[in-house]
Amino acid sequence: MGRVTERRKVIRIRDGALSSRPDTLVTEEPLEIRLNGKPLAITMRTPGDDFALATGFLVSEGVLAQQHDLQNIVYCAGATKNGTNTYNIVDVTTATHVAIPDITLERNVYTTSSCGLCGKASLDAVTTTTHWPIHDTPPVRVSPELLASLPDQLRAAQQVFDRTGGLHAAALFTEHGHLLDIREDVGRHNAVDKLIGRALQHGNLPLSRTLLLVSGRASFELAQKAVMAGIPLLAAVSAPSSLAVDLATETGLTLVGFLRGPSMNVYAGEHRLALEATAAPS
Amino acid sequence: MGRVTERRKVIRIRDGALSSRPDTLVTEEPLEIRLNGKPLAITMRTPGDDFALATGFLVSEGVLAQQHDLQNIVYCAGATKNGTNTYNIVDVTTATHVAIPDITLERNVYTTSSCGLCGKASLDAVTTTTHWPIHDTPPVRVSPELLASLPDQLRAAQQVFDRTGGLHAAALFTEHGHLLDIREDVGRHNAVDKLIGRALQHGNLPLSRTLLLVSGRASFELAQKAVMAGIPLLAAVSAPSSLAVDLATETGLTLVGFLRGPSMNVYAGEHRLALEATAAPS
Repeated sequence: MGRVTERRKVIRIRDGALSSRPDTLVTEEPLEIRLNGKPLAITMRTPGDDFALATGFLVSEGVLAQQHDLQNIVYCAGATKNGTNTYNIVDVTTATHVAIPDITLERNVYTTSSCGLCGKASLDAVTTTTHWPIHDTPPVRVSPELLASLPDQLRAAQQVFDRTGGLHAAALFTEHGHLLDIREDVGRHNAVDKLIGRALQHGNLPLSRTLLLVSGRASFELAQKAVMAGIPLLAAVSAPSSLAVDLATETGLTLVGFLRGPSMNVYAGEHRLALEATAAPS
Repeated sequence: MGRVTERRKVIRIRDGALSSRPDTLVTEEPLEIRLNGKPLAITMRTPGDDFALATGFLVSEGVLAQQHDLQNIVYCAGATKNGTNTYNIVDVTTATHVAIPDITLERNVYTTSSCGLCGKASLDAVTTTTHWPIHDTPPVRVSPELLASLPDQLRAAQQVFDRTGGLHAAALFTEHGHLLDIREDVGRHNAVDKLIGRALQHGNLPLSRTLLLVSGRASFELAQKAVMAGIPLLAAVSAPSSLAVDLATETGLTLVGFLRGPSMNVYAGEHRLALEATAAPS
Protein backbone atom coordinates (compact mmCIF):
# COMPACT_ATOMS: atom_id res chain seq x y z
CA MET A 1 0.00 0.00 0.00
CA GLY A 2 3.06 2.24 -0.02
CA ARG A 3 2.60 2.81 -3.72
CA VAL A 4 -0.55 4.92 -3.65
CA THR A 5 1.51 8.06 -4.10
CA GLU A 6 5.01 8.80 -5.35
CA ARG A 7 7.33 11.79 -5.13
CA ARG A 8 8.73 13.57 -8.14
CA LYS A 9 10.62 16.79 -8.63
CA VAL A 10 8.47 19.56 -10.05
CA ILE A 11 9.10 23.12 -11.18
CA ARG A 12 6.36 25.39 -9.95
CA ILE A 13 5.55 28.61 -11.76
CA ARG A 14 3.41 31.08 -9.85
CA ASP A 15 2.93 34.52 -11.33
CA GLY A 16 6.31 34.41 -13.01
CA ALA A 17 8.20 33.14 -9.96
CA LEU A 18 9.88 29.74 -10.18
CA SER A 19 10.59 27.20 -7.50
CA SER A 20 11.75 23.61 -7.60
CA ARG A 21 10.48 21.13 -5.05
CA PRO A 22 9.33 17.56 -4.59
CA ASP A 23 5.67 17.00 -5.39
CA THR A 24 3.35 14.14 -4.50
CA LEU A 25 1.76 12.33 -7.44
CA VAL A 26 -0.85 9.65 -7.54
CA THR A 27 0.63 6.31 -8.56
CA GLU A 28 -0.58 4.72 -11.78
CA GLU A 29 0.40 1.15 -12.70
CA PRO A 30 -1.10 -1.47 -15.02
CA LEU A 31 -3.08 -4.35 -13.53
CA GLU A 32 -3.80 -7.47 -15.52
CA ILE A 33 -6.89 -9.35 -14.42
CA ARG A 34 -6.86 -13.06 -15.19
CA LEU A 35 -9.91 -15.27 -14.94
CA ASN A 36 -9.13 -18.90 -14.15
CA GLY A 37 -5.62 -18.42 -15.47
CA LYS A 38 -6.62 -16.69 -18.72
CA PRO A 39 -5.82 -12.99 -19.30
CA LEU A 40 -9.07 -11.03 -19.45
CA ALA A 41 -8.29 -7.32 -19.18
CA ILE A 42 -5.66 -4.76 -18.35
CA THR A 43 -6.57 -1.61 -16.46
CA MET A 44 -4.37 1.32 -15.47
CA ARG A 45 -5.03 1.75 -11.76
CA THR A 46 -3.70 3.06 -8.48
CA PRO A 47 -2.23 0.08 -6.60
CA GLY A 48 -4.11 -1.08 -3.52
CA ASP A 49 -7.28 -3.16 -3.07
CA ASP A 50 -6.27 -5.05 -6.20
CA PHE A 51 -8.23 -8.17 -5.21
CA ALA A 52 -11.31 -6.01 -4.65
CA LEU A 53 -10.73 -4.29 -7.99
CA ALA A 54 -10.54 -7.61 -9.83
CA THR A 55 -13.57 -8.95 -7.97
CA GLY A 56 -15.67 -5.84 -8.60
CA PHE A 57 -14.66 -5.82 -12.26
CA LEU A 58 -15.95 -9.38 -12.57
CA VAL A 59 -19.23 -8.39 -10.89
CA SER A 60 -19.57 -5.63 -13.50
CA GLU A 61 -18.92 -8.17 -16.24
CA GLY A 62 -21.56 -10.57 -14.92
CA VAL A 63 -19.11 -13.28 -13.86
CA LEU A 64 -19.35 -13.00 -10.06
CA ALA A 65 -22.46 -12.26 -8.02
CA GLN A 66 -21.73 -13.33 -4.47
CA GLN A 67 -19.01 -14.33 -2.04
CA HIS A 68 -19.14 -18.07 -2.66
CA ASP A 69 -18.73 -17.62 -6.44
CA LEU A 70 -15.14 -16.83 -5.62
CA GLN A 71 -12.76 -19.69 -4.92
CA ASN A 72 -9.44 -17.92 -4.77
CA ILE A 73 -7.54 -14.77 -5.73
CA VAL A 74 -3.77 -14.57 -5.91
CA TYR A 75 -1.05 -12.33 -7.25
CA CYS A 76 0.72 -14.29 -9.95
CA ALA A 77 4.23 -15.07 -8.79
CA GLY A 78 7.23 -15.19 -11.06
CA ALA A 79 5.80 -12.50 -13.27
CA THR A 80 9.24 -11.23 -14.19
CA LYS A 81 12.32 -12.87 -15.64
CA ASN A 82 14.17 -12.78 -12.35
CA GLY A 83 11.22 -14.15 -10.41
CA THR A 84 10.31 -11.05 -8.44
CA ASN A 85 6.66 -10.19 -8.17
CA THR A 86 5.42 -6.91 -9.63
CA TYR A 87 2.04 -7.34 -7.88
CA ASN A 88 0.46 -6.21 -11.13
CA ILE A 89 -1.14 -9.49 -12.20
CA VAL A 90 -4.09 -10.94 -10.32
CA ASP A 91 -5.66 -14.32 -11.05
CA VAL A 92 -9.24 -14.93 -9.97
CA THR A 93 -10.40 -18.52 -9.67
CA THR A 94 -14.14 -19.02 -9.69
CA ALA A 95 -16.02 -21.73 -7.81
CA THR A 96 -16.94 -24.77 -9.87
CA HIS A 97 -20.63 -23.81 -10.05
CA VAL A 98 -19.91 -20.48 -11.79
CA ALA A 99 -20.70 -20.48 -15.50
CA ILE A 100 -18.28 -18.23 -17.33
CA PRO A 101 -20.14 -16.02 -19.79
CA ASP A 102 -18.76 -15.60 -23.26
CA ILE A 103 -16.64 -12.55 -22.59
CA THR A 104 -13.23 -12.09 -24.02
CA LEU A 105 -12.04 -8.55 -23.62
CA GLU A 106 -13.70 -5.25 -22.89
CA ARG A 107 -17.40 -5.27 -23.60
CA ASN A 108 -17.49 -7.89 -26.30
CA VAL A 109 -20.86 -8.87 -24.85
CA TYR A 110 -22.36 -5.91 -26.67
CA THR A 111 -21.68 -7.33 -30.07
CA THR A 112 -23.59 -10.54 -29.35
CA SER A 113 -26.90 -8.70 -29.48
CA SER A 114 -29.12 -9.12 -32.48
CA CYS A 115 -29.01 -5.36 -32.90
CA GLY A 116 -25.41 -5.37 -34.08
CA LEU A 117 -23.71 -2.70 -32.07
CA CYS A 118 -25.73 0.19 -30.71
CA GLY A 119 -26.74 1.86 -27.51
CA LYS A 120 -29.77 -0.41 -27.23
CA ALA A 121 -27.53 -3.47 -27.43
CA SER A 122 -25.40 -2.06 -24.63
CA LEU A 123 -28.50 -1.64 -22.47
CA ASP A 124 -29.72 -5.14 -23.29
CA ALA A 125 -26.37 -6.63 -22.36
CA VAL A 126 -26.65 -5.17 -18.86
CA THR A 127 -30.25 -6.20 -18.27
CA THR A 128 -29.66 -9.75 -19.47
CA THR A 129 -26.41 -10.36 -17.61
CA THR A 130 -27.16 -8.82 -14.22
CA HIS A 131 -27.59 -11.22 -11.33
CA TRP A 132 -29.07 -8.47 -9.18
CA PRO A 133 -31.89 -6.57 -10.87
CA ILE A 134 -32.53 -3.45 -8.80
CA HIS A 135 -35.04 -4.54 -6.18
CA ASP A 136 -35.47 -2.31 -3.14
CA THR A 137 -38.73 -3.05 -1.32
CA PRO A 138 -39.94 -0.70 -0.05
CA PRO A 139 -38.10 1.68 -2.41
CA VAL A 140 -35.25 3.65 -0.92
CA ARG A 141 -36.44 7.23 -0.36
CA VAL A 142 -34.00 10.09 0.05
CA SER A 143 -34.53 13.79 0.49
CA PRO A 144 -32.67 16.41 -1.54
CA GLU A 145 -31.13 17.57 1.75
CA LEU A 146 -29.66 14.12 2.35
CA LEU A 147 -28.24 13.98 -1.17
CA ALA A 148 -26.84 17.48 -0.77
CA SER A 149 -24.79 16.28 2.22
CA LEU A 150 -23.01 13.49 0.34
CA PRO A 151 -20.39 15.40 -1.69
CA ASP A 152 -19.08 17.11 1.46
CA GLN A 153 -18.73 13.72 3.14
CA LEU A 154 -16.92 12.37 0.09
CA ARG A 155 -14.55 15.30 -0.01
CA ALA A 156 -13.80 15.10 3.71
CA ALA A 157 -12.94 11.41 3.40
CA GLN A 158 -10.70 11.80 0.34
CA GLN A 159 -7.25 11.44 1.81
CA VAL A 160 -5.05 11.07 -1.22
CA PHE A 161 -6.78 13.73 -3.29
CA ASP A 162 -5.72 16.37 -0.79
CA ARG A 163 -2.10 15.50 -1.42
CA THR A 164 -2.18 14.98 -5.17
CA GLY A 165 -5.32 16.54 -6.65
CA GLY A 166 -5.13 13.65 -9.06
CA LEU A 167 -7.66 11.11 -7.95
CA HIS A 168 -11.18 10.17 -8.72
CA ALA A 169 -13.31 8.98 -5.84
CA ALA A 170 -16.39 6.86 -5.34
CA ALA A 171 -18.28 6.33 -2.10
CA LEU A 172 -21.06 4.10 -0.87
CA PHE A 173 -23.60 5.42 1.64
CA THR A 174 -26.50 3.83 3.49
CA GLU A 175 -29.95 4.97 2.45
CA HIS A 176 -29.79 7.25 5.49
CA GLY A 177 -26.68 9.00 4.20
CA HIS A 178 -24.04 7.36 6.40
CA LEU A 179 -20.71 6.72 4.68
CA LEU A 180 -20.03 2.99 4.30
CA ASP A 181 -16.89 2.96 2.18
CA ILE A 182 -14.83 5.19 -0.08
CA ARG A 183 -12.15 4.33 -2.64
CA GLU A 184 -9.84 6.59 -4.66
CA ASP A 185 -8.11 5.72 -7.92
CA VAL A 186 -6.69 7.33 -11.07
CA GLY A 187 -9.65 5.68 -12.82
CA ARG A 188 -13.17 6.39 -11.62
CA HIS A 189 -14.32 3.00 -12.89
CA ASN A 190 -11.60 1.36 -10.79
CA ALA A 191 -12.76 3.20 -7.66
CA VAL A 192 -16.30 1.88 -8.21
CA ASP A 193 -15.04 -1.65 -8.90
CA LYS A 194 -13.06 -1.55 -5.66
CA LEU A 195 -16.17 -0.54 -3.69
CA ILE A 196 -18.26 -3.29 -5.26
CA GLY A 197 -15.51 -5.89 -4.91
CA ARG A 198 -15.11 -5.14 -1.21
CA ALA A 199 -18.87 -5.44 -0.77
CA LEU A 200 -18.83 -8.86 -2.45
CA GLN A 201 -15.92 -9.99 -0.29
CA HIS A 202 -17.89 -9.00 2.80
CA GLY A 203 -21.02 -10.78 1.62
CA ASN A 204 -22.91 -7.54 1.07
CA LEU A 205 -24.20 -7.98 -2.49
CA PRO A 206 -26.68 -6.96 -3.73
CA LEU A 207 -26.26 -3.41 -2.45
CA SER A 208 -30.02 -2.87 -2.53
CA ARG A 209 -30.20 -0.24 0.18
CA THR A 210 -27.22 1.93 -0.66
CA LEU A 211 -26.40 5.11 -2.55
CA LEU A 212 -23.35 5.42 -4.82
CA LEU A 213 -21.66 8.79 -5.29
CA VAL A 214 -18.96 9.44 -7.87
CA SER A 215 -16.77 12.45 -8.42
CA GLY A 216 -17.03 13.85 -11.93
CA ARG A 217 -19.32 12.58 -14.66
CA ALA A 218 -21.72 9.65 -14.88
CA SER A 219 -20.96 7.56 -17.95
CA PHE A 220 -22.71 4.44 -19.17
CA GLU A 221 -19.92 2.36 -17.67
CA LEU A 222 -20.47 3.73 -14.16
CA ALA A 223 -24.24 3.32 -14.40
CA GLN A 224 -23.64 -0.25 -15.60
CA LYS A 225 -21.51 -1.00 -12.55
CA ALA A 226 -24.18 0.36 -10.20
CA VAL A 227 -26.88 -1.71 -11.89
CA MET A 228 -24.80 -4.92 -11.88
CA ALA A 229 -24.37 -4.61 -8.09
CA GLY A 230 -28.07 -3.87 -7.49
CA ILE A 231 -27.42 -0.30 -6.30
CA PRO A 232 -30.69 1.69 -6.63
CA LEU A 233 -29.27 5.24 -6.74
CA LEU A 234 -26.26 6.75 -8.49
CA ALA A 235 -25.34 10.39 -7.90
CA ALA A 236 -22.62 12.27 -9.77
CA VAL A 237 -21.08 15.65 -9.13
CA SER A 238 -21.11 16.42 -12.85
CA ALA A 239 -23.09 15.58 -16.01
CA PRO A 240 -24.44 12.19 -17.10
CA SER A 241 -24.27 10.94 -20.68
CA SER A 242 -27.31 10.06 -22.78
CA LEU A 243 -26.65 6.34 -22.50
CA ALA A 244 -26.26 6.49 -18.73
CA VAL A 245 -29.70 8.09 -18.53
CA ASP A 246 -31.16 5.51 -20.90
CA LEU A 247 -29.73 2.65 -18.84
CA ALA A 248 -31.09 4.17 -15.64
CA THR A 249 -34.53 4.57 -17.18
CA GLU A 250 -34.56 0.99 -18.46
CA THR A 251 -33.36 -0.63 -15.23
CA GLY A 252 -35.10 1.52 -12.63
CA LEU A 253 -31.89 3.13 -11.38
CA THR A 254 -32.27 6.60 -9.88
CA LEU A 255 -29.73 8.87 -11.57
CA VAL A 256 -28.84 12.24 -10.07
CA GLY A 257 -26.37 14.59 -11.77
CA PHE A 258 -24.81 17.98 -11.11
CA LEU A 259 -25.10 17.32 -7.37
CA ARG A 260 -23.69 20.57 -5.99
CA GLY A 261 -24.91 21.74 -2.61
CA PRO A 262 -28.70 22.11 -2.65
CA SER A 263 -28.77 22.00 -6.47
CA MET A 264 -29.14 18.77 -8.45
CA ASN A 265 -30.77 17.30 -11.53
CA VAL A 266 -32.78 14.06 -11.42
CA TYR A 267 -32.58 12.22 -14.75
CA ALA A 268 -34.36 8.96 -13.90
CA GLY A 269 -36.06 7.11 -11.04
CA GLU A 270 -37.45 10.23 -9.36
CA HIS A 271 -39.78 8.05 -7.25
CA ARG A 272 -36.87 7.59 -4.85
CA LEU A 273 -36.67 11.33 -4.23
CA ALA A 274 -38.69 12.42 -1.20
CA LEU A 275 -40.07 15.58 -2.75
CA GLU A 276 -42.76 17.84 -1.35
CA ALA A 277 -46.03 16.69 -2.87
CA THR A 278 -47.15 20.27 -3.44
CA ALA A 279 -43.99 21.05 -5.35
CA ALA A 280 -43.94 17.90 -7.45
CA PRO A 281 -43.47 18.56 -11.14
CA SER A 282 -46.31 17.87 -13.48
CA MET B 1 -23.41 14.64 -36.73
CA GLY B 2 -26.88 15.21 -35.28
CA ARG B 3 -26.14 12.77 -32.52
CA VAL B 4 -23.58 14.77 -30.56
CA THR B 5 -26.23 15.80 -28.05
CA GLU B 6 -29.64 14.46 -27.09
CA ARG B 7 -32.60 15.85 -25.19
CA ARG B 8 -34.02 14.20 -22.08
CA LYS B 9 -36.54 15.31 -19.48
CA VAL B 10 -34.92 16.32 -16.21
CA ILE B 11 -36.24 17.37 -12.82
CA ARG B 12 -34.22 20.29 -11.53
CA ILE B 13 -33.98 20.93 -7.81
CA ARG B 14 -32.68 24.36 -6.82
CA ASP B 15 -32.85 25.32 -3.16
CA GLY B 16 -35.91 23.17 -2.59
CA ALA B 17 -37.78 24.37 -5.67
CA LEU B 18 -38.61 21.84 -8.38
CA SER B 19 -39.00 22.29 -12.09
CA SER B 20 -39.27 19.84 -14.95
CA ARG B 21 -37.80 20.66 -18.31
CA PRO B 22 -35.91 19.19 -21.24
CA ASP B 23 -32.17 19.07 -20.78
CA THR B 24 -29.36 18.62 -23.29
CA LEU B 25 -27.09 15.65 -22.70
CA VAL B 26 -23.92 14.59 -24.41
CA THR B 27 -24.48 11.52 -26.56
CA GLU B 28 -22.58 8.35 -25.66
CA GLU B 29 -22.61 5.33 -27.97
CA PRO B 30 -20.31 2.33 -28.42
CA LEU B 31 -17.90 2.26 -31.36
CA GLU B 32 -16.27 -0.95 -32.46
CA ILE B 33 -12.96 -0.49 -34.26
CA ARG B 34 -12.05 -3.27 -36.66
CA LEU B 35 -8.61 -3.66 -38.18
CA ASN B 36 -8.62 -5.36 -41.60
CA GLY B 37 -11.96 -6.92 -40.79
CA LYS B 38 -11.05 -8.18 -37.33
CA PRO B 39 -12.62 -6.64 -34.18
CA LEU B 40 -9.91 -4.87 -32.20
CA ALA B 41 -11.54 -2.67 -29.56
CA ILE B 42 -14.78 -1.13 -28.41
CA THR B 43 -14.82 2.37 -27.01
CA MET B 44 -17.73 4.37 -25.60
CA ARG B 45 -17.61 7.64 -27.50
CA THR B 46 -19.55 10.67 -28.65
CA PRO B 47 -20.50 10.06 -32.30
CA GLY B 48 -18.76 12.21 -34.89
CA ASP B 49 -15.29 12.04 -36.41
CA ASP B 50 -15.46 8.27 -36.08
CA PHE B 51 -12.97 7.67 -38.89
CA ALA B 52 -10.55 10.07 -37.22
CA LEU B 53 -11.13 8.35 -33.87
CA ALA B 54 -10.35 4.93 -35.34
CA THR B 55 -7.33 6.30 -37.19
CA GLY B 56 -5.95 8.10 -34.15
CA PHE B 57 -6.51 5.04 -31.98
CA LEU B 58 -4.40 3.02 -34.40
CA VAL B 59 -1.66 5.65 -34.31
CA SER B 60 -1.65 5.33 -30.51
CA GLU B 61 -1.39 1.55 -30.85
CA GLY B 62 1.56 1.78 -33.24
CA VAL B 63 -0.30 0.46 -36.30
CA LEU B 64 -0.55 3.62 -38.39
CA ALA B 65 2.06 6.35 -38.73
CA GLN B 66 1.17 8.34 -41.83
CA GLN B 67 -1.48 8.99 -44.42
CA HIS B 68 -0.41 6.36 -46.92
CA ASP B 69 -0.51 3.59 -44.29
CA LEU B 70 -4.25 3.86 -44.59
CA GLN B 71 -5.95 2.18 -47.52
CA ASN B 72 -9.60 2.56 -46.61
CA ILE B 73 -12.05 3.24 -43.78
CA VAL B 74 -15.73 2.35 -43.92
CA TYR B 75 -18.73 2.00 -41.66
CA CYS B 76 -19.68 -1.66 -41.73
CA ALA B 77 -23.03 -2.00 -43.45
CA GLY B 78 -25.64 -4.53 -42.47
CA ALA B 79 -24.67 -4.34 -38.84
CA THR B 80 -28.21 -5.08 -37.71
CA LYS B 81 -30.65 -7.87 -38.44
CA ASN B 82 -32.80 -5.66 -40.63
CA GLY B 83 -29.81 -4.32 -42.51
CA THR B 84 -29.88 -0.74 -41.24
CA ASN B 85 -26.58 0.78 -40.32
CA THR B 86 -25.96 1.85 -36.72
CA TYR B 87 -22.81 3.71 -37.76
CA ASN B 88 -21.17 2.21 -34.68
CA ILE B 89 -18.74 -0.17 -36.38
CA VAL B 90 -15.76 1.12 -38.33
CA ASP B 91 -13.38 -1.07 -40.33
CA VAL B 92 -9.90 0.23 -41.08
CA THR B 93 -7.99 -1.37 -43.92
CA THR B 94 -4.26 -0.81 -43.88
CA ALA B 95 -2.03 -0.52 -46.93
CA THR B 96 -0.20 -3.67 -47.89
CA HIS B 97 3.17 -2.39 -46.65
CA VAL B 98 1.91 -1.98 -43.07
CA ALA B 99 3.08 -4.66 -40.69
CA ILE B 100 0.43 -5.33 -38.08
CA PRO B 101 2.01 -5.53 -34.64
CA ASP B 102 0.97 -8.32 -32.33
CA ILE B 103 -1.86 -6.50 -30.62
CA THR B 104 -5.11 -8.13 -29.81
CA LEU B 105 -7.14 -6.02 -27.44
CA GLU B 106 -6.38 -3.11 -25.13
CA ARG B 107 -2.74 -2.82 -24.28
CA ASN B 108 -1.74 -6.40 -24.69
CA VAL B 109 1.56 -5.02 -25.91
CA TYR B 110 2.51 -4.38 -22.30
CA THR B 111 2.60 -8.03 -21.41
CA THR B 112 5.08 -8.90 -24.13
CA SER B 113 7.88 -7.21 -22.24
CA SER B 114 10.45 -9.32 -20.49
CA CYS B 115 9.55 -7.54 -17.27
CA GLY B 116 6.18 -9.24 -16.98
CA LEU B 117 3.73 -6.47 -16.29
CA CYS B 118 4.89 -3.29 -14.65
CA GLY B 119 5.12 0.41 -15.22
CA LYS B 120 8.55 -0.01 -16.83
CA ALA B 121 7.10 -2.46 -19.33
CA SER B 122 4.41 0.07 -20.22
CA LEU B 123 7.08 2.70 -20.85
CA ASP B 124 9.15 0.30 -22.92
CA ALA B 125 6.15 -0.61 -25.06
CA VAL B 126 5.71 3.03 -26.04
CA THR B 127 9.35 3.70 -26.80
CA THR B 128 9.72 0.56 -28.89
CA THR B 129 6.50 0.92 -30.89
CA THR B 130 6.50 4.63 -31.69
CA HIS B 131 7.13 5.56 -35.30
CA TRP B 132 7.68 9.20 -34.31
CA PRO B 133 10.17 9.63 -31.48
CA ILE B 134 9.85 13.20 -30.26
CA HIS B 135 12.23 15.18 -32.44
CA ASP B 136 11.81 18.95 -32.56
CA THR B 137 14.90 20.65 -33.90
CA PRO B 138 15.40 23.30 -32.70
CA PRO B 139 13.36 22.45 -29.59
CA VAL B 140 9.97 24.11 -29.30
CA ARG B 141 10.24 26.91 -26.71
CA VAL B 142 7.17 28.36 -25.04
CA SER B 143 6.81 30.99 -22.37
CA PRO B 144 4.63 30.52 -19.27
CA GLU B 145 2.51 33.40 -20.60
CA LEU B 146 1.81 31.52 -23.82
CA LEU B 147 0.86 28.36 -21.90
CA ALA B 148 -1.36 30.40 -19.61
CA SER B 149 -3.38 31.56 -22.60
CA LEU B 150 -4.25 28.05 -23.82
CA PRO B 151 -7.00 26.99 -21.38
CA ASP B 152 -9.02 30.14 -22.16
CA GLN B 153 -8.76 29.39 -25.87
CA LEU B 154 -9.86 25.81 -25.24
CA ARG B 155 -12.82 26.91 -23.16
CA ALA B 156 -13.90 29.51 -25.70
CA ALA B 157 -13.88 26.91 -28.47
CA GLN B 158 -15.79 24.24 -26.53
CA GLN B 159 -19.19 24.38 -28.11
CA VAL B 160 -20.90 21.29 -26.76
CA PHE B 161 -19.61 21.64 -23.22
CA ASP B 162 -21.52 24.88 -22.83
CA ARG B 163 -24.74 23.07 -23.51
CA THR B 164 -24.12 19.86 -21.58
CA GLY B 165 -21.30 20.33 -19.09
CA GLY B 166 -20.53 16.74 -19.89
CA LEU B 167 -17.64 16.71 -22.28
CA HIS B 168 -13.93 16.37 -22.14
CA ALA B 169 -11.92 18.38 -24.60
CA ALA B 170 -8.51 18.24 -26.21
CA ALA B 171 -6.93 20.89 -28.42
CA LEU B 172 -3.86 21.17 -30.60
CA PHE B 173 -1.98 24.47 -30.83
CA THR B 174 0.95 25.66 -32.89
CA GLU B 175 4.16 26.29 -30.98
CA HIS B 176 3.13 29.95 -31.11
CA GLY B 177 -0.12 29.28 -29.28
CA HIS B 178 -2.54 29.43 -32.21
CA LEU B 179 -5.42 26.96 -32.03
CA LEU B 180 -5.19 24.32 -34.78
CA ASP B 181 -7.97 21.92 -33.85
CA ILE B 182 -10.23 21.00 -30.95
CA ARG B 183 -12.33 17.88 -30.31
CA GLU B 184 -14.86 17.11 -27.58
CA ASP B 185 -15.97 13.68 -26.43
CA VAL B 186 -17.33 11.86 -23.38
CA GLY B 187 -13.93 10.18 -23.24
CA ARG B 188 -10.82 12.34 -23.04
CA HIS B 189 -8.78 9.64 -24.78
CA ASN B 190 -11.27 9.69 -27.66
CA ALA B 191 -10.92 13.47 -28.02
CA VAL B 192 -7.14 13.07 -28.31
CA ASP B 193 -7.46 10.17 -30.77
CA LYS B 194 -9.77 12.30 -32.92
CA LEU B 195 -7.21 15.13 -33.01
CA ILE B 196 -4.39 12.79 -33.95
CA GLY B 197 -6.49 10.90 -36.48
CA ARG B 198 -7.45 14.13 -38.24
CA ALA B 199 -3.81 15.15 -38.31
CA LEU B 200 -2.88 11.85 -39.95
CA GLN B 201 -5.67 12.19 -42.49
CA HIS B 202 -4.34 15.62 -43.41
CA GLY B 203 -0.78 14.38 -43.71
CA ASN B 204 0.38 16.29 -40.65
CA LEU B 205 2.11 13.56 -38.65
CA PRO B 206 4.43 13.77 -36.81
CA LEU B 207 3.07 16.75 -34.87
CA SER B 208 6.59 17.87 -33.98
CA ARG B 209 5.86 21.56 -33.59
CA THR B 210 2.56 21.48 -31.73
CA LEU B 211 1.27 21.69 -28.17
CA LEU B 212 -1.49 19.41 -26.88
CA LEU B 213 -3.84 20.63 -24.14
CA VAL B 214 -6.33 18.37 -22.35
CA SER B 215 -9.08 19.22 -19.90
CA GLY B 216 -8.75 17.34 -16.62
CA ARG B 217 -5.95 15.01 -15.66
CA ALA B 218 -2.93 13.68 -17.54
CA SER B 219 -2.85 9.90 -17.35
CA PHE B 220 -0.30 7.51 -18.81
CA GLU B 221 -2.69 6.82 -21.69
CA LEU B 222 -2.86 10.48 -22.72
CA ALA B 223 0.89 10.92 -22.46
CA GLN B 224 1.28 7.77 -24.58
CA LYS B 225 -0.95 9.20 -27.29
CA ALA B 226 1.05 12.45 -27.37
CA VAL B 227 4.32 10.54 -27.65
CA MET B 228 3.05 8.20 -30.38
CA ALA B 229 2.15 11.24 -32.53
CA GLY B 230 5.48 12.95 -31.91
CA ILE B 231 3.92 15.83 -29.94
CA PRO B 232 6.65 17.50 -27.84
CA LEU B 233 4.49 19.17 -25.16
CA LEU B 234 1.42 17.99 -23.24
CA ALA B 235 -0.37 20.36 -20.88
CA ALA B 236 -3.22 19.38 -18.57
CA VAL B 237 -5.55 21.51 -16.50
CA SER B 238 -5.30 19.07 -13.62
CA ALA B 239 -2.82 16.59 -12.09
CA PRO B 240 -0.64 14.05 -13.89
CA SER B 241 -0.10 10.51 -12.67
CA SER B 242 3.27 9.05 -11.71
CA LEU B 243 3.44 6.93 -14.85
CA ALA B 244 2.60 9.87 -17.12
CA VAL B 245 5.56 11.75 -15.61
CA ASP B 246 7.82 8.73 -15.98
CA LEU B 247 6.87 8.34 -19.64
CA ALA B 248 7.47 12.03 -20.28
CA THR B 249 10.88 11.84 -18.63
CA GLU B 250 11.87 8.78 -20.62
CA THR B 251 10.72 10.04 -24.02
CA GLY B 252 11.61 13.73 -23.75
CA LEU B 253 8.00 14.92 -23.64
CA THR B 254 7.42 18.19 -21.82
CA LEU B 255 4.62 17.62 -19.30
CA VAL B 256 2.83 20.56 -17.70
CA GLY B 257 0.09 20.03 -15.10
CA PHE B 258 -2.28 22.20 -13.06
CA LEU B 259 -2.25 24.78 -15.84
CA ARG B 260 -4.49 27.45 -14.35
CA GLY B 261 -3.98 31.03 -15.37
CA PRO B 262 -0.41 32.07 -14.63
CA SER B 263 0.13 29.04 -12.37
CA MET B 264 1.45 25.72 -13.60
CA ASN B 265 3.72 22.84 -12.66
CA VAL B 266 6.37 21.48 -15.01
CA TYR B 267 6.98 17.77 -14.42
CA ALA B 268 9.35 16.93 -17.26
CA GLY B 269 11.08 18.45 -20.27
CA GLU B 270 11.52 21.91 -18.73
CA HIS B 271 14.05 22.80 -21.46
CA ARG B 272 11.05 23.74 -23.62
CA LEU B 273 9.97 26.39 -21.13
CA ALA B 274 11.33 29.83 -21.94
CA LEU B 275 12.11 30.80 -18.37
CA GLU B 276 14.03 33.84 -17.19
CA ALA B 277 17.61 32.76 -16.74
CA THR B 278 17.93 34.67 -13.50
CA ALA B 279 14.92 32.91 -12.04
CA ALA B 280 15.85 29.44 -13.18
CA PRO B 281 15.61 26.84 -10.44
CA SER B 282 18.76 25.28 -9.10
